[in-house]
Amino acid sequence: MRAPIDFYFDFTSPYGYFASTRIDELAAKYGREAVWRPMLLGAVFKIAGTGPLPPIPLKGDYALRDIPRFARLLGVPFKLPSVFPMASVPPCRAFYWLHDQNPLRAKEFARAVFHAYFLDDRDISKSETTIDLAADMGVDRDQISAALNDNAVKERLKTEVDLAIKKGVFGSPFIVVDGEPFWGADRLNQVEKWLETGGW
Amino acid sequence: MRAPIDFYFDFTSPYGYFASTRIDELAAKYGREAVWRPMLLGAVFKIAGTGPLPPIPLKGDYALRDIPRFARLLGVPFKLPSVFPMASVPPCRAFYWLHDQNPLRAKEFARAVFHAYFLDDRDISKSETTIDLAADMGVDRDQISAALNDNAVKERLKTEVDLAIKKGVFGSPFIVVDGEPFWGADRLNQVEKWLETGGW
Repeated sequence: MRAPIDFYFDFTSPYGYFASTRIDELAAKYGREAVWRPMLLGAVFKIAGTGPLPPIPLKGDYALRDIPRFARLLGVPFKLPSVFPMASVPPCRAFYWLHDQNPLRAKEFARAVFHAYFLDDRDISKSETTIDLAADMGVDRDQISAALNDNAVKERLKTEVDLAIKKGVFGSPFIVVDGEPFWGADRLNQVEKWLETGGW
Repeated sequence: MRAPIDFYFDFTSPYGYFASTRIDELAAKYGREAVWRPMLLGAVFKIAGTGPLPPIPLKGDYALRDIPRFARLLGVPFKLPSVFPMASVPPCRAFYWLHDQNPLRAKEFARAVFHAYFLDDRDISKSETTIDLAADMGVDRDQISAALNDNAVKERLKTEVDLAIKKGVFGSPFIVVDGEPFWGADRLNQVEKWLETGGW
Protein backbone atom coordinates (compact mmCIF):
# COMPACT_ATOMS: atom_id res chain seq x y z
CA MET A 1 0.00 0.00 0.00
CA ARG A 2 1.30 3.43 -0.87
CA ALA A 3 1.60 6.33 1.59
CA PRO A 4 -1.68 7.44 3.17
CA ILE A 5 -3.22 10.78 2.24
CA ASP A 6 -4.06 13.36 4.89
CA PHE A 7 -7.62 14.62 5.18
CA TYR A 8 -7.86 17.74 7.34
CA PHE A 9 -11.26 19.18 8.20
CA ASP A 10 -13.23 21.16 10.74
CA PHE A 11 -16.29 19.39 12.14
CA THR A 12 -18.46 22.44 11.45
CA SER A 13 -17.32 22.89 7.83
CA PRO A 14 -20.00 21.80 5.34
CA TYR A 15 -17.41 21.40 2.60
CA GLY A 16 -15.37 19.23 4.99
CA TYR A 17 -18.47 17.16 5.62
CA PHE A 18 -19.09 16.80 1.88
CA ALA A 19 -15.50 15.63 1.33
CA SER A 20 -15.81 13.17 4.23
CA THR A 21 -18.50 11.31 2.28
CA ARG A 22 -16.08 10.71 -0.61
CA ILE A 23 -12.50 10.65 0.67
CA ASP A 24 -12.16 7.04 1.87
CA GLU A 25 -13.57 5.61 -1.34
CA LEU A 26 -11.42 7.94 -3.42
CA ALA A 27 -8.24 7.00 -1.55
CA ALA A 28 -9.03 3.27 -1.68
CA LYS A 29 -9.54 3.45 -5.43
CA TYR A 30 -5.85 4.31 -5.74
CA GLY A 31 -4.61 1.89 -3.09
CA ARG A 32 -4.35 4.55 -0.39
CA GLU A 33 -5.72 5.12 3.04
CA ALA A 34 -7.16 8.47 4.13
CA VAL A 35 -6.00 9.60 7.55
CA TRP A 36 -8.69 11.84 9.03
CA ARG A 37 -7.34 14.84 10.94
CA PRO A 38 -9.99 17.09 12.45
CA MET A 39 -8.68 20.51 13.35
CA LEU A 40 -9.96 23.87 14.55
CA LEU A 41 -10.45 26.53 11.92
CA GLY A 42 -10.74 29.09 14.71
CA ALA A 43 -7.02 28.62 15.38
CA VAL A 44 -6.26 29.23 11.71
CA PHE A 45 -8.42 32.35 11.60
CA LYS A 46 -6.30 33.92 14.34
CA ILE A 47 -3.15 33.42 12.29
CA ALA A 48 -4.50 34.17 8.83
CA GLY A 49 -6.63 37.11 9.96
CA THR A 50 -9.58 35.49 8.25
CA GLY A 51 -12.89 34.34 9.78
CA PRO A 52 -16.06 32.33 9.28
CA LEU A 53 -17.93 32.81 6.01
CA PRO A 54 -21.49 33.88 6.99
CA PRO A 55 -20.72 37.42 8.27
CA ILE A 56 -18.50 38.36 5.30
CA PRO A 57 -20.42 40.84 3.11
CA LEU A 58 -21.42 39.41 -0.30
CA LYS A 59 -19.28 36.27 0.14
CA GLY A 60 -21.30 35.10 3.14
CA ASP A 61 -24.61 35.28 1.29
CA TYR A 62 -23.09 33.42 -1.61
CA ALA A 63 -21.71 30.69 0.68
CA LEU A 64 -25.14 30.10 2.22
CA ARG A 65 -26.46 29.54 -1.30
CA ASP A 66 -23.51 27.52 -2.58
CA ILE A 67 -23.40 25.10 0.36
CA PRO A 68 -26.91 23.56 0.05
CA ARG A 69 -26.61 23.65 -3.75
CA PHE A 70 -23.34 21.71 -3.53
CA ALA A 71 -24.98 19.19 -1.17
CA ARG A 72 -27.87 18.64 -3.57
CA LEU A 73 -25.47 18.14 -6.47
CA LEU A 74 -23.55 15.49 -4.53
CA GLY A 75 -26.72 13.93 -3.18
CA VAL A 76 -25.47 14.37 0.39
CA PRO A 77 -28.20 14.87 3.02
CA PHE A 78 -27.72 18.29 4.55
CA LYS A 79 -29.53 20.89 6.65
CA LEU A 80 -27.90 24.21 7.52
CA PRO A 81 -27.43 24.18 11.32
CA SER A 82 -29.22 26.92 13.23
CA VAL A 83 -25.88 28.02 14.74
CA PHE A 84 -23.24 28.00 12.02
CA PRO A 85 -20.34 27.63 12.35
CA MET A 86 -19.42 26.89 15.96
CA ALA A 87 -16.41 25.74 17.98
CA SER A 88 -15.84 22.01 17.96
CA VAL A 89 -13.26 21.32 20.65
CA PRO A 90 -14.99 18.38 22.42
CA PRO A 91 -15.49 16.20 19.32
CA CYS A 92 -11.92 16.94 18.19
CA ARG A 93 -10.51 15.83 21.53
CA ALA A 94 -12.71 12.73 21.51
CA PHE A 95 -11.64 11.93 17.96
CA TYR A 96 -7.91 11.83 18.75
CA TRP A 97 -8.51 9.95 22.00
CA LEU A 98 -10.48 7.31 20.08
CA HIS A 99 -8.00 7.38 17.22
CA ASP A 100 -5.12 6.42 19.47
CA GLN A 101 -7.07 3.32 20.47
CA ASN A 102 -8.69 2.45 17.15
CA PRO A 103 -8.57 4.66 14.02
CA LEU A 104 -11.66 3.02 12.50
CA ARG A 105 -13.73 3.75 15.59
CA ALA A 106 -12.54 7.35 15.41
CA LYS A 107 -13.81 7.65 11.82
CA GLU A 108 -17.13 6.12 12.86
CA PHE A 109 -17.36 8.72 15.61
CA ALA A 110 -16.46 11.53 13.18
CA ARG A 111 -19.27 10.47 10.85
CA ALA A 112 -21.66 10.55 13.79
CA VAL A 113 -20.51 14.08 14.64
CA PHE A 114 -21.10 15.29 11.08
CA HIS A 115 -24.52 13.66 11.16
CA ALA A 116 -25.37 15.26 14.50
CA TYR A 117 -24.40 18.72 13.27
CA PHE A 118 -25.46 18.74 9.63
CA LEU A 119 -28.57 16.59 9.80
CA ASP A 120 -29.86 16.76 13.39
CA ASP A 121 -28.82 20.36 14.18
CA ARG A 122 -27.26 19.34 17.48
CA ASP A 123 -24.91 21.60 19.44
CA ILE A 124 -21.55 19.87 18.94
CA SER A 125 -19.72 22.59 20.86
CA LYS A 126 -21.02 21.00 24.07
CA SER A 127 -19.21 18.13 25.77
CA GLU A 128 -22.56 16.43 26.46
CA THR A 129 -23.19 15.95 22.75
CA THR A 130 -19.81 14.29 22.27
CA ILE A 131 -20.42 12.08 25.30
CA ASP A 132 -23.85 11.07 23.98
CA LEU A 133 -22.49 10.30 20.52
CA ALA A 134 -19.63 8.23 21.92
CA ALA A 135 -22.00 6.42 24.28
CA ASP A 136 -24.23 5.56 21.28
CA MET A 137 -21.18 3.75 19.90
CA GLY A 138 -20.75 1.81 23.12
CA VAL A 139 -18.01 3.95 24.65
CA ASP A 140 -18.18 4.19 28.43
CA ARG A 141 -19.61 7.59 29.45
CA ASP A 142 -17.24 8.04 32.39
CA GLN A 143 -14.23 7.20 30.27
CA ILE A 144 -15.08 9.66 27.50
CA SER A 145 -16.03 12.34 30.05
CA ALA A 146 -12.68 11.93 31.74
CA ALA A 147 -10.86 11.98 28.39
CA LEU A 148 -12.39 15.32 27.43
CA ASN A 149 -10.85 16.87 30.53
CA ASP A 150 -7.57 15.01 30.42
CA ASN A 151 -4.56 17.26 29.99
CA ALA A 152 -2.79 14.76 27.75
CA VAL A 153 -5.83 14.66 25.44
CA LYS A 154 -6.03 18.46 25.40
CA GLU A 155 -2.35 18.60 24.54
CA ARG A 156 -2.76 15.97 21.82
CA LEU A 157 -5.33 18.13 20.02
CA LYS A 158 -3.26 21.26 20.44
CA THR A 159 -0.25 19.51 18.91
CA GLU A 160 -2.33 18.27 15.97
CA VAL A 161 -3.72 21.74 15.26
CA ASP A 162 -0.28 23.37 15.54
CA LEU A 163 1.20 20.77 13.23
CA ALA A 164 -1.60 21.22 10.69
CA ILE A 165 -0.99 24.96 10.60
CA LYS A 166 2.75 24.37 10.30
CA LYS A 167 2.01 22.21 7.27
CA GLY A 168 0.02 25.09 5.71
CA VAL A 169 -3.51 23.92 6.44
CA PHE A 170 -5.83 26.96 6.49
CA GLY A 171 -9.21 25.67 5.34
CA SER A 172 -11.56 22.71 5.29
CA PRO A 173 -11.34 20.29 3.66
CA PHE A 174 -7.60 20.31 3.09
CA ILE A 175 -6.13 17.20 1.53
CA VAL A 176 -2.44 16.42 1.19
CA VAL A 177 -1.26 13.79 -1.30
CA ASP A 178 2.47 13.00 -1.18
CA GLY A 179 3.17 16.53 0.08
CA GLU A 180 0.89 18.21 -2.48
CA PRO A 181 -1.86 20.34 -0.87
CA PHE A 182 -5.43 20.67 -2.14
CA TRP A 183 -7.98 22.97 -0.51
CA GLY A 184 -11.71 22.63 -0.94
CA ALA A 185 -14.35 20.05 -1.77
CA ASP A 186 -14.12 21.45 -5.30
CA ARG A 187 -10.55 20.15 -5.56
CA LEU A 188 -11.54 16.50 -5.12
CA ASN A 189 -11.35 15.99 -8.90
CA GLN A 190 -7.79 17.34 -8.83
CA VAL A 191 -6.98 15.10 -5.84
CA GLU A 192 -8.21 12.17 -7.88
CA LYS A 193 -6.16 13.19 -10.90
CA TRP A 194 -3.07 13.60 -8.72
CA LEU A 195 -3.61 10.14 -7.21
CA GLU A 196 -4.08 8.71 -10.67
CA THR A 197 -1.16 10.38 -12.42
CA GLY A 198 1.28 11.29 -9.66
CA GLY A 199 1.07 14.96 -10.61
CA TRP A 200 1.20 17.23 -13.65
CA MET B 1 -31.31 31.98 -28.41
CA ARG B 2 -31.83 31.85 -24.66
CA ALA B 3 -30.80 34.58 -22.22
CA PRO B 4 -27.08 35.35 -22.15
CA ILE B 5 -24.97 34.43 -19.14
CA ASP B 6 -22.92 37.04 -17.29
CA PHE B 7 -19.19 36.52 -16.92
CA TYR B 8 -17.68 38.87 -14.34
CA PHE B 9 -13.92 38.98 -13.86
CA ASP B 10 -10.98 41.11 -12.82
CA PHE B 11 -8.24 41.46 -15.44
CA THR B 12 -5.57 40.56 -12.87
CA SER B 13 -7.34 37.43 -11.60
CA PRO B 14 -5.66 34.24 -12.83
CA TYR B 15 -8.83 32.24 -12.18
CA GLY B 16 -10.76 34.82 -14.20
CA TYR B 17 -8.24 34.42 -17.00
CA PHE B 18 -8.59 30.62 -16.86
CA ALA B 19 -12.39 30.90 -17.08
CA SER B 20 -12.09 33.33 -20.00
CA THR B 21 -10.49 30.57 -22.06
CA ARG B 22 -13.56 28.36 -21.60
CA ILE B 23 -16.64 30.51 -21.06
CA ASP B 24 -17.63 31.37 -24.66
CA GLU B 25 -17.40 27.77 -25.83
CA LEU B 26 -19.28 26.59 -22.76
CA ALA B 27 -22.09 29.09 -23.27
CA ALA B 28 -22.34 28.38 -27.00
CA LYS B 29 -22.66 24.65 -26.30
CA TYR B 30 -25.99 25.40 -24.62
CA GLY B 31 -27.16 28.02 -27.09
CA ARG B 32 -26.11 30.95 -24.92
CA GLU B 33 -23.91 33.95 -25.26
CA ALA B 34 -21.46 34.98 -22.54
CA VAL B 35 -21.48 38.70 -21.77
CA TRP B 36 -18.05 39.66 -20.46
CA ARG B 37 -18.11 42.14 -17.60
CA PRO B 38 -14.68 43.16 -16.28
CA MET B 39 -14.84 44.72 -12.84
CA LEU B 40 -12.49 45.87 -10.11
CA LEU B 41 -11.94 43.51 -7.21
CA GLY B 42 -10.36 46.40 -5.30
CA ALA B 43 -13.82 47.96 -5.03
CA VAL B 44 -15.21 44.69 -3.65
CA PHE B 45 -12.38 44.34 -1.14
CA LYS B 46 -13.36 47.69 0.40
CA ILE B 47 -16.91 46.48 0.97
CA ALA B 48 -16.23 42.90 1.97
CA GLY B 49 -13.21 43.74 4.11
CA THR B 50 -11.22 41.17 2.17
CA GLY B 51 -8.10 41.66 0.07
CA PRO B 52 -5.74 40.16 -2.49
CA LEU B 53 -4.60 36.58 -1.92
CA PRO B 54 -0.77 36.70 -1.84
CA PRO B 55 -0.29 38.52 1.51
CA ILE B 56 -2.80 36.34 3.41
CA PRO B 57 -0.84 34.00 5.73
CA LEU B 58 -1.04 30.32 4.69
CA LYS B 59 -3.77 30.96 2.08
CA GLY B 60 -1.48 33.20 0.01
CA ASP B 61 1.25 30.57 -0.27
CA TYR B 62 -1.32 27.99 -1.23
CA ALA B 63 -2.80 30.25 -3.92
CA LEU B 64 0.60 30.78 -5.51
CA ARG B 65 0.91 27.00 -5.76
CA ASP B 66 -2.67 26.33 -6.81
CA ILE B 67 -2.73 28.91 -9.61
CA PRO B 68 0.09 27.55 -11.82
CA ARG B 69 -1.03 23.99 -11.03
CA PHE B 70 -4.55 24.85 -12.20
CA ALA B 71 -3.12 26.43 -15.38
CA ARG B 72 -1.09 23.31 -16.16
CA LEU B 73 -4.14 21.10 -15.63
CA LEU B 74 -6.19 23.19 -18.05
CA GLY B 75 -3.32 23.50 -20.50
CA VAL B 76 -3.57 27.30 -20.37
CA PRO B 77 -0.28 29.17 -20.95
CA PHE B 78 0.50 31.12 -17.79
CA LYS B 79 3.35 32.92 -16.06
CA LEU B 80 2.87 34.51 -12.65
CA PRO B 81 3.28 38.29 -13.20
CA SER B 82 6.12 39.96 -11.30
CA VAL B 83 3.60 42.38 -9.75
CA PHE B 84 0.49 40.44 -8.72
CA PRO B 85 -2.24 41.48 -8.47
CA MET B 86 -2.48 45.11 -9.58
CA ALA B 87 -5.15 47.70 -10.33
CA SER B 88 -6.66 47.44 -13.79
CA VAL B 89 -8.66 50.62 -14.32
CA PRO B 90 -7.40 51.56 -17.82
CA PRO B 91 -8.20 48.21 -19.52
CA CYS B 92 -11.62 48.15 -17.81
CA ARG B 93 -12.47 51.59 -19.11
CA ALA B 94 -11.22 50.69 -22.58
CA PHE B 95 -13.23 47.47 -22.52
CA TYR B 96 -16.58 49.18 -21.91
CA TRP B 97 -15.77 51.94 -24.38
CA LEU B 98 -15.04 49.31 -27.04
CA HIS B 99 -18.00 47.20 -25.94
CA ASP B 100 -20.44 50.02 -26.60
CA GLN B 101 -19.18 50.13 -30.17
CA ASN B 102 -18.62 46.44 -30.82
CA PRO B 103 -18.86 43.69 -28.16
CA LEU B 104 -16.73 41.26 -30.17
CA ARG B 105 -13.90 43.78 -30.45
CA ALA B 106 -14.14 44.30 -26.70
CA LYS B 107 -13.67 40.57 -26.10
CA GLU B 108 -10.73 40.53 -28.49
CA PHE B 109 -9.22 43.39 -26.50
CA ALA B 110 -9.88 41.58 -23.20
CA ARG B 111 -8.04 38.50 -24.46
CA ALA B 112 -5.10 40.73 -25.41
CA VAL B 113 -5.08 42.21 -21.90
CA PHE B 114 -5.02 38.77 -20.28
CA HIS B 115 -2.20 37.79 -22.64
CA ALA B 116 -0.25 40.93 -21.84
CA TYR B 117 -0.53 40.39 -18.09
CA PHE B 118 -0.35 36.61 -17.71
CA LEU B 119 2.05 35.76 -20.50
CA ASP B 120 4.11 38.85 -21.21
CA ASP B 121 4.25 40.27 -17.66
CA ARG B 122 3.27 43.75 -18.84
CA ASP B 123 2.08 46.47 -16.47
CA ILE B 124 -1.64 46.68 -17.29
CA SER B 125 -2.21 49.29 -14.58
CA LYS B 126 -0.67 51.86 -16.94
CA SER B 127 -2.73 53.66 -19.57
CA GLU B 128 0.14 53.27 -22.07
CA THR B 129 -0.25 49.48 -22.05
CA THR B 130 -3.95 49.73 -22.80
CA ILE B 131 -3.27 52.25 -25.57
CA ASP B 132 -0.61 49.99 -27.09
CA LEU B 133 -2.86 46.94 -26.95
CA ALA B 134 -5.76 48.80 -28.53
CA ALA B 135 -3.47 50.26 -31.20
CA ASP B 136 -2.29 46.71 -32.02
CA MET B 137 -5.93 45.98 -32.84
CA GLY B 138 -6.12 48.97 -35.14
CA VAL B 139 -7.79 51.38 -32.73
CA ASP B 140 -6.71 55.00 -33.16
CA ARG B 141 -4.25 55.95 -30.39
CA ASP B 142 -5.69 59.44 -29.92
CA GLN B 143 -9.22 58.11 -29.69
CA ILE B 144 -8.43 55.49 -27.07
CA SER B 145 -6.26 57.96 -25.13
CA ALA B 146 -9.13 60.42 -25.05
CA ALA B 147 -11.59 57.70 -24.04
CA LEU B 148 -9.50 56.70 -21.02
CA ASN B 149 -9.84 60.24 -19.69
CA ASP B 150 -13.42 60.79 -20.71
CA ASN B 151 -15.77 61.39 -17.80
CA ALA B 152 -18.60 59.45 -19.43
CA VAL B 153 -16.29 56.43 -19.82
CA LYS B 154 -15.13 56.74 -16.23
CA GLU B 155 -18.74 56.89 -15.11
CA ARG B 156 -19.64 53.91 -17.28
CA LEU B 157 -17.07 51.72 -15.49
CA LYS B 158 -18.11 53.00 -12.07
CA THR B 159 -21.73 52.14 -12.83
CA GLU B 160 -20.78 48.65 -14.01
CA VAL B 161 -18.75 47.96 -10.87
CA ASP B 162 -21.48 49.30 -8.58
CA LEU B 163 -24.07 47.19 -10.36
CA ALA B 164 -21.90 44.07 -10.13
CA ILE B 165 -21.53 44.54 -6.39
CA LYS B 166 -25.25 45.16 -6.06
CA LYS B 167 -25.79 41.83 -7.80
CA GLY B 168 -23.54 40.13 -5.23
CA VAL B 169 -20.36 39.77 -7.27
CA PHE B 170 -17.39 39.54 -4.88
CA GLY B 171 -14.80 37.44 -6.70
CA SER B 172 -13.37 36.48 -10.07
CA PRO B 173 -14.57 34.70 -12.07
CA PHE B 174 -18.21 35.12 -11.10
CA ILE B 175 -20.75 33.68 -13.49
CA VAL B 176 -24.50 34.23 -13.36
CA VAL B 177 -26.83 31.85 -15.20
CA ASP B 178 -30.50 32.84 -15.15
CA GLY B 179 -29.98 34.61 -11.82
CA GLU B 180 -27.99 31.74 -10.29
CA PRO B 181 -24.48 32.82 -9.13
CA PHE B 182 -21.33 30.70 -9.40
CA TRP B 183 -17.98 31.84 -8.04
CA GLY B 184 -14.66 30.44 -9.15
CA ALA B 185 -13.03 28.68 -12.07
CA ASP B 186 -13.68 25.51 -10.09
CA ARG B 187 -17.42 26.03 -10.49
CA LEU B 188 -17.36 25.82 -14.29
CA ASN B 189 -18.51 22.19 -14.12
CA GLN B 190 -21.49 23.32 -12.03
CA VAL B 191 -22.16 26.16 -14.49
CA GLU B 192 -22.22 23.58 -17.25
CA LYS B 193 -24.56 21.31 -15.31
CA TRP B 194 -26.87 24.24 -14.58
CA LEU B 195 -26.92 25.19 -18.27
CA GLU B 196 -27.62 21.59 -19.18
CA THR B 197 -30.31 20.85 -16.62
CA GLY B 198 -31.77 24.21 -15.65
CA GLY B 199 -30.82 23.65 -12.03
CA TRP B 200 -31.01 21.02 -9.32
